[in-house]
Amino acid sequence: MSHGQQLDVLNRRQCLDRLAQVRVGRLVFTEDALPAIQPVNFRLWHDDVVIRVAGGPKLEAATAHQVVAFEADELDPDLRKGWSVTVVGQAEPVTDIEDLVAVAGTFIEPWVQGRRDHFIRIRTDRMTGREFREDAGPQYGS
Amino acid sequence: MSHGQQLDVLNRRQCLDRLAQVRVGRLVFTEDALPAIQPVNFRLWHDDVVIRVAGGPKLEAATAHQVVAFEADELDPDLRKGWSVTVVGQAEPVTDIEDLVAVAGTFIEPWVQGRRDHFIRIRTDRMTGREFREDAGPQYGS
Repeated sequence: MSHGQQLDVLNRRQCLDRLAQVRVGRLVFTEDALPAIQPVNFRLWHDDVVIRVAGGPKLEAATAHQVVAFEADELDPDLRKGWSVTVVGQAEPVTDIEDLVAVAGTFIEPWVQGRRDHFIRIRTDRMTGREFREDAGPQYGS
Repeated sequence: MSHGQQLDVLNRRQCLDRLAQVRVGRLVFTEDALPAIQPVNFRLWHDDVVIRVAGGPKLEAATAHQVVAFEADELDPDLRKGWSVTVVGQAEPVTDIEDLVAVAGTFIEPWVQGRRDHFIRIRTDRMTGREFREDAGPQYGS
């Protein structure tokens, strides 16, 4: 790497650990045949990403079982340090009532039945992650 | 909006003002027929987004004049406040030498000719932005 910077590829466990540290990510989907990106609240649930949406195109994408991308990161202002994890997978609405209650319980704001929130699961089978760090002499551990 | 939250649609000027506040965004492109997302350094230049890349798939996408999406945001940890701006457009490598020097000068790290950095411009003709804020009583202005 140039710029005195290291780039580490994260393994599955490391990706999940990073995702567990944040609650907001970005959902990339197709809208009118163009890529669209929207910030979303998410949680990890059974090692998959579950996002909460209030209807609209994101929900339509999910309902259509579209292949979507999800990204979350923590990056410093100049991209010298930080990580980014991307998940690509089919968006599946969570419909089983027991699953809904369990998923909703992982979000901070309580899920009120009757409110028009939907939960969409993106399986993490195709997940990639990278960590940037400044190259500060010899590295210890992995 | 539910959750006592407001969602404002940003106009072009507001989008550009928000983009001028940050230096890292996310580039969404297609790699092996799947969506890929990578954090990138960027600057505004003549009201367009210019990203700096060190080669690889992002550069290939740019060289191929692929339609890409670019997103930048500032979001609080629970998506109660913040903004997100997305640009969709054709990625064009900056090749004119005068343009290169001008663009490179806007980045913090100096551009050293001979280093394998490339600059890619994404025109902001198709730009959308949103601002989230908590609904705290009557709103003034727009």
